[in-house]
Amino acid sequence: MREIDREFIEGALPFWKELRPEEKQRLEEGISLRQLPAGTVIHGGTGDCDGLFLLRHGQVRVFIVSEGGKEITLYRLFERDICIFSASCAFKNISFDVMVETVKDTEAYLIPTWLYQEFQHKSLPISEYTNQLMASRFSDVMWIMEQTLFMSFDRRLALFLLEQSNIEGSDRLPITHDTIARHMGTAREVVTRMLKYFAAEGIVELFRGGVVIKDRKKLLTYS
Amino acid sequence: MREIDREFIEGALPFWKELRPEEKQRLEEGISLRQLPAGTVIHGGTGDCDGLFLLRHGQVRVFIVSEGGKEITLYRLFERDICIFSASCAFKNISFDVMVETVKDTEAYLIPTWLYQEFQHKSLPISEYTNQLMASRFSDVMWIMEQTLFMSFDRRLALFLLEQSNIEGSDRLPITHDTIARHMGTAREVVTRMLKYFAAEGIVELFRGGVVIKDRKKLLTYS
Repeated sequence: MREIDREFIEGALPFWKELRPEEKQRLEEGISLRQLPAGTVIHGGTGDCDGLFLLRHGQVRVFIVSEGGKEITLYRLFERDICIFSASCAFKNISFDVMVETVKDTEAYLIPTWLYQEFQHKSLPISEYTNQLMASRFSDVMWIMEQTLFMSFDRRLALFLLEQSNIEGSDRLPITHDTIARHMGTAREVVTRMLKYFAAEGIVELFRGGVVIKDRKKLLTYS
Repeated sequence: MREIDREFIEGALPFWKELRPEEKQRLEEGISLRQLPAGTVIHGGTGDCDGLFLLRHGQVRVFIVSEGGKEITLYRLFERDICIFSASCAFKNISFDVMVETVKDTEAYLIPTWLYQEFQHKSLPISEYTNQLMASRFSDVMWIMEQTLFMSFDRRLALFLLEQSNIEGSDRLPITHDTIARHMGTAREVVTRMLKYFAAEGIVELFRGGVVIKDRKKLLTYS
């Protein structure tokens, strides 16, 4: 393992410093760096269970799909985040399945399922860390659930645009109505209608293939 | 602690046999039996964080409430189940809150938060068990989320009636349209309309304050 990889992993995994030297070595030998181009399905529906992915850079989307093809994004993962559900077979009592897909070109460390399982029942720091990861993702899902079930669509869309602008680090968002609709589990027409309303209010400007936030303050009043 | 309590707790908590004698004693000293009449709010919104409840008998409902008062039942707990979110302050990274309420007269062992926290970072069996509990509840919530977001209402209502009949051990369900609506996060009128449709199809019979399942086979075709 390269020094640069070791440093990144040590920094990203809070339990690393609590491991014994031989445990660290065992992990280092089993972890590999993977190149995952945008659009790669890391996990979903086909019984695949490669392991946990620690993102070095890039972006991953975790979502569910209805039988009718309706999608809802549960959460997104970025640099230093860990994807646990790509190793869902390692967790007792997980009876649901999600789709995991790279949104941007992504580089990630893979901790294979067999290796994680070797530690899962032996190491208290790793078990505790798993608890915290599970609780984080649970919180993400509860947030989305409350949003989709309880919140009006204008508010949800405002929050989505603000979040997207946060991720992109820009007010110019290269995202189509169709992609927004898929993230939010709704129809493209619903998104277009609400965006046109926001545009008429001077809150956003629409261009082919994207949205520009013009009046962030006003958008915030909707969120 | 009475022998009858000790036996119940040993049987219900899979990690018990892995604890050291002094750990068992410490827990036994801290656990108490509580009487919780139907309708008691065990946890919700007011920053209360009593601890984990292990149900000796009775029934508990865990649900979320929108600002507008709309409720959705996430899951229900029965004999030998453990309520973790009544100790949500003990879990790092839990950023949501749920309501927890007894539906029937309930008797439950309380493991106070301070006592749980004492073990949480010291005991691998307890940490692993917490993981499994968290994963179970996560799965329950994902199921409800997929139901409410993706499933048609006739299907959801059929599943609800079948589950209710399972819980009651009877085809005669003493439950009002209003209570069903609150469980499912919808309006009473929507429930009434669909129940009337089921009644017209000969699937159920309605009586004041409840529903009788008349044609279980046909109800199953909707589920």
